[in-house]
Amino acid sequence: MNFALVSQLLGKVLMLEGAMMAPSLLVSLLYGGSDAPAFLWSMAMVLAAGGLLALIKPKNDQLRAREGFVVVSVSWILLSVFGAMPFVLSGAIPSFVDSFFECVSGFTTTGSTLLPDVESLPRGVLFWRSFTHWIGGMGVLVLSLALVPKMGARSLHLLRAESPGPNPGKLVPRIGNTAKILYTIYVALTLVQILLLLIAGMPLYDSLVHSFGSAGTGGFSIYNLSIGHYQNPVFENIIAVFMMLFGINFTVYYQLITRNFKGVLKNGELWLYLGIIVAATLLIALNILPTIEGNLFDALRLSYFQVSSVITTTGYATTDFNLWPQFSRYLLVLLMFVGACAGSTGGGIKVIRLEILLKSLARDVKRTIHPRGVKVVKSEGRAVDEPTINSITVFFFSYIFIILMATLLVSLDGLSFETSFTATVSAMGNIGPGLDKVGPMGNFSCFSPFSKIVLSLCMLAGRLEIYPILMLVTPATWKKA
Amino acid sequence: MNFALVSQLLGKVLMLEGAMMAPSLLVSLLYGGSDAPAFLWSMAMVLAAGGLLALIKPKNDQLRAREGFVVVSVSWILLSVFGAMPFVLSGAIPSFVDSFFECVSGFTTTGSTLLPDVESLPRGVLFWRSFTHWIGGMGVLVLSLALVPKMGARSLHLLRAESPGPNPGKLVPRIGNTAKILYTIYVALTLVQILLLLIAGMPLYDSLVHSFGSAGTGGFSIYNLSIGHYQNPVFENIIAVFMMLFGINFTVYYQLITRNFKGVLKNGELWLYLGIIVAATLLIALNILPTIEGNLFDALRLSYFQVSSVITTTGYATTDFNLWPQFSRYLLVLLMFVGACAGSTGGGIKVIRLEILLKSLARDVKRTIHPRGVKVVKSEGRAVDEPTINSITVFFFSYIFIILMATLLVSLDGLSFETSFTATVSAMGNIGPGLDKVGPMGNFSCFSPFSKIVLSLCMLAGRLEIYPILMLVTPATWKKA
Repeated sequence: MNFALVSQLLGKVLMLEGAMMAPSLLVSLLYGGSDAPAFLWSMAMVLAAGGLLALIKPKNDQLRAREGFVVVSVSWILLSVFGAMPFVLSGAIPSFVDSFFECVSGFTTTGSTLLPDVESLPRGVLFWRSFTHWIGGMGVLVLSLALVPKMGARSLHLLRAESPGPNPGKLVPRIGNTAKILYTIYVALTLVQILLLLIAGMPLYDSLVHSFGSAGTGGFSIYNLSIGHYQNPVFENIIAVFMMLFGINFTVYYQLITRNFKGVLKNGELWLYLGIIVAATLLIALNILPTIEGNLFDALRLSYFQVSSVITTTGYATTDFNLWPQFSRYLLVLLMFVGACAGSTGGGIKVIRLEILLKSLARDVKRTIHPRGVKVVKSEGRAVDEPTINSITVFFFSYIFIILMATLLVSLDGLSFETSFTATVSAMGNIGPGLDKVGPMGNFSCFSPFSKIVLSLCMLAGRLEIYPILMLVTPATWKKA
Repeated sequence: MNFALVSQLLGKVLMLEGAMMAPSLLVSLLYGGSDAPAFLWSMAMVLAAGGLLALIKPKNDQLRAREGFVVVSVSWILLSVFGAMPFVLSGAIPSFVDSFFECVSGFTTTGSTLLPDVESLPRGVLFWRSFTHWIGGMGVLVLSLALVPKMGARSLHLLRAESPGPNPGKLVPRIGNTAKILYTIYVALTLVQILLLLIAGMPLYDSLVHSFGSAGTGGFSIYNLSIGHYQNPVFENIIAVFMMLFGINFTVYYQLITRNFKGVLKNGELWLYLGIIVAATLLIALNILPTIEGNLFDALRLSYFQVSSVITTTGYATTDFNLWPQFSRYLLVLLMFVGACAGSTGGGIKVIRLEILLKSLARDVKRTIHPRGVKVVKSEGRAVDEPTINSITVFFFSYIFIILMATLLVSLDGLSFETSFTATVSAMGNIGPGLDKVGPMGNFSCFSPFSKIVLSLCMLAGRLEIYPILMLVTPATWKKA
C-alpha cells in the first residue's frame, strides 16, 4: 500500500470539499447568516486537514487498483465526517453520530433523514444538506478527475471504484475528458431542471435544492411533507420526469449528443428500465385507484411520481405510500432492489445486472435441458464474458447477504420486521424512505446509535457497490507488496 | 420429448404411491376405520391411473436429462394431486385446493398446514399426512430407483433432479445401489428415533408420526401445539437431535459406515452447519433469557430445539417463537434461508452453497485487490470448477428472485408484510411456519386460494431446487429433438 500517495489524494479530495462548502456559506449569509460561523469553521477544518495531507509527497505516483479503491472508500468516509461538521457546529443536529448519518445519507444520495422537522433548520444548512446529494451523485472523485490534472497516473481505478455498474468505462480515451463530459451533461441537465421549476413558479431556493436532490437521486427535501408540500401537479411532474432522466445511464446522453442513435436503440438496459417504470406505474395506479380521492389520472400521477422516485432511488414523495395497499407498498420495495441504470446517479442493484441475472437464469435452465449445448448470455448484441457474469452474480449475493445480516444487527432495536428490513433495503439501495416507521412521512430517529452506524455503512456499501468497503476490512489490502 | 417413456415412468411412480397408502389404510382400520373408505377409493384411483400409464410401451427407453427432469417435476405434482384424495374423500379437508396445498406441504416436507385444529382429524388421515413427509424426504424417485430394476436406462438424471444440493452424485458406481444405500441409512435412522421415543415413553402412534416428520424434515404434528404439546424435555431433546442428524448429508453416514473418517473431517459443509447451529443457539438463548420463565439451561433447550427445527427446515415447535424478541425471530428467518446440508432431507439454499458463495465473494474482493492474480475457490480440499460456482450463484439469484416475486403475488391478499414475506420464505425453504399470522401456533388458512397455489408452487420449486419446475414452462423442453 502506497500510503503517501493515498494521503496526498485524500488531501486533494478534502480541499475540494472545503471549496464545495462555499456556496452554502454564501446562501447562509444571504439568509441572515445564523449558520455562517458553522460553515467558516468547517471550511477551515477541512481545508487545513486536506492541505496538510496534500503536502505529503509520494516517492512514486503509481496508483494500483488497491490504492484506487482505498482512496475512494476512505475519501467517502472522510467527506462524511467533515461534511457533518456544519450540522454539528450550527447546532442543527447536535449529536455527531446523527450528523454523520445525515451526511452519509446526503453524499450517498440516500436521503434518509433523522430530523422530524426539517423546516426548522437554517437555510445554509439545508442548502448544504441538499448540495451533498449533488456532489455525491456523480461522485467527488470523478469531479477531481475532471478538475485536477494528473490526479494519479492510472486513475481509471478511481472512476471504476466510484461509478456504479458492472463495467464502468471510459467514453473517450482520456479519463480526465470522460469525467469532464460526464460532469458537463450532469450540470446541463441540472440547470434545465432548475429553469423549468422556476418557469413553473417554484422559488429559486426551492428549485435549487430540489434539483440537486433529483440530479443526485438523493431525496432530501426542505419540507416535512417532501414534494407533497406544494400540492402542485406541475412541480410533481417536472421532478418525476427528471428523476427518471437522472436514473438513465449517462452514456445514453453522450450517444444522443454524438448522434449514435443506434447505440441508444440497442441499449437493452434502457428499455427494460422504462418498461419496468411503465408496468409498475400501471399496476400501482390500478391498485390504489379505489383507495384515493380522484380519478385514474390522479392515480397515475401519484403512482408515476412514487415509482420514478423509488426506482431511481431518489426518495421524494408526494403522498404517504406507507398507507397504500400491501401490493403497492411491496411493489415499491421490489423496485428498491432493482434500482436505476448503471452509469447513472441512482443506486440499487441496477437494471443491467437484473437483465444479465435473468438471462443467466434462462441459460442455466436451458443447459439443464440440453446439457451439451454451448450457450452465451447476450446483452446489447454482444456476448457477455463469463468473468463479468460471475462478478454480477456474486455481487448480487453480496448485496442480499449484507442486507440480511445488517437487518439482523438493526433488529436488536426491537422495531418491527417491516421497519428493520425496509430500512436496510432502503439504506443499501440509497433510496431514503422505507415502510412503517421509516415510511416517507416518518424518519430514522427511532434507531439506536449502533443501528445508525450500521445503516450508514450500508449506505456507503451501496453507493460504492460493496467491494471498496469490504476491501477496507480485508488484510490483503494492507499488506506490503 | 419421449412422451411414452415419461408416461410409463409416471405410471410406475403412481403405482408406488398407491402401495404407500397401504400402511395408512391399516392404521385407519386399527383405529375404527372411519376414514378407511377414503383410502380404499384413493388407492383404487391412483393404482388405476398408474396402471394405465405404465401400460404405455416406449419405442426407446433412453432417458435424456430433459425427460428425467420432467418425470420428476410432473411426478411430484401428480403425487400431490392423488395424495390429496384421502383428505378430500374423508371430508377432513373438503376443498381440493386446500387438500392439494396440505399434500404438497407434506411431500415437499414443508409442514405448513391450513388446519386450525389438527387434533380433530381421523387417525388414518393424520398418519398419511405425516407419512408423506417420510416419502418426500428422501424422494419417491430415489425410492423407485431402489425398488424398481431398470427404472430408465440413464437414471442418474432422476437422482440429480430429486436430490438436493449442487452436485448430487453416486456413492457407488451403480445408481440403483446408491439409492438402496441411501434408503437403508434413512430407514435405520428413522427406526432408531422411533425406538428412542418409545423408550422415553411416547406412545407408538405418536413416535411413528413424529419420527416421519423429523426424518423427512417435514414438521406436521398431530397436536395443535406441535411438540410443545407434551411439555416433555426428553422428547424434545430426542427430536431436536434427530432433526439435526437428518439435516446432515447422508454421504457422511456412508463415510462413517465405511470408516472414511478423514472424509468426514474434511467435510467443510458439516462443520459450518454445526457451527451455525451452535452460534444461533447461543445467540437466541441469550436474547430470550430475560423473557422466559426459567434459567439459562431452559433458554438453551428452547433455543436449540427451534434452531434445529428451523435450520433443518422441519418446522416443529415447542414454543411460540413468534412471541420472541425481534432479534431472535429474525435470526430464525435467516436460518430459513440457509437450510440444511446438501444430500440431506432438508431444504433451503443449503449450507454448502452458502459456503461456496461466501468463498466466491472473498475471492472477488481479493481479485479487486490483485486484479492479475489467479484464484480458485476451494471446498473440501479441492478446487470448485467455475461452471459449478456459476450454477450456485445463479441458483441463489433464482431462489431470491422467486421469493421476491411470489411475495408480490401473495401480498394481493393484503396481509402484513411480515406474514406474506415469511410465508413465502418458509414455503420456498420447505420449513413450515413463518412469523406473524403464519407463526408456529398459526396456520395458512388466512390466504386466498390463489395464494395457496402460489405457495404450493414455491414449495415444489424449493423441494426440487427450482430448475425442474422452471423447465415445465420453458418451450425448449417440449420441442421435438
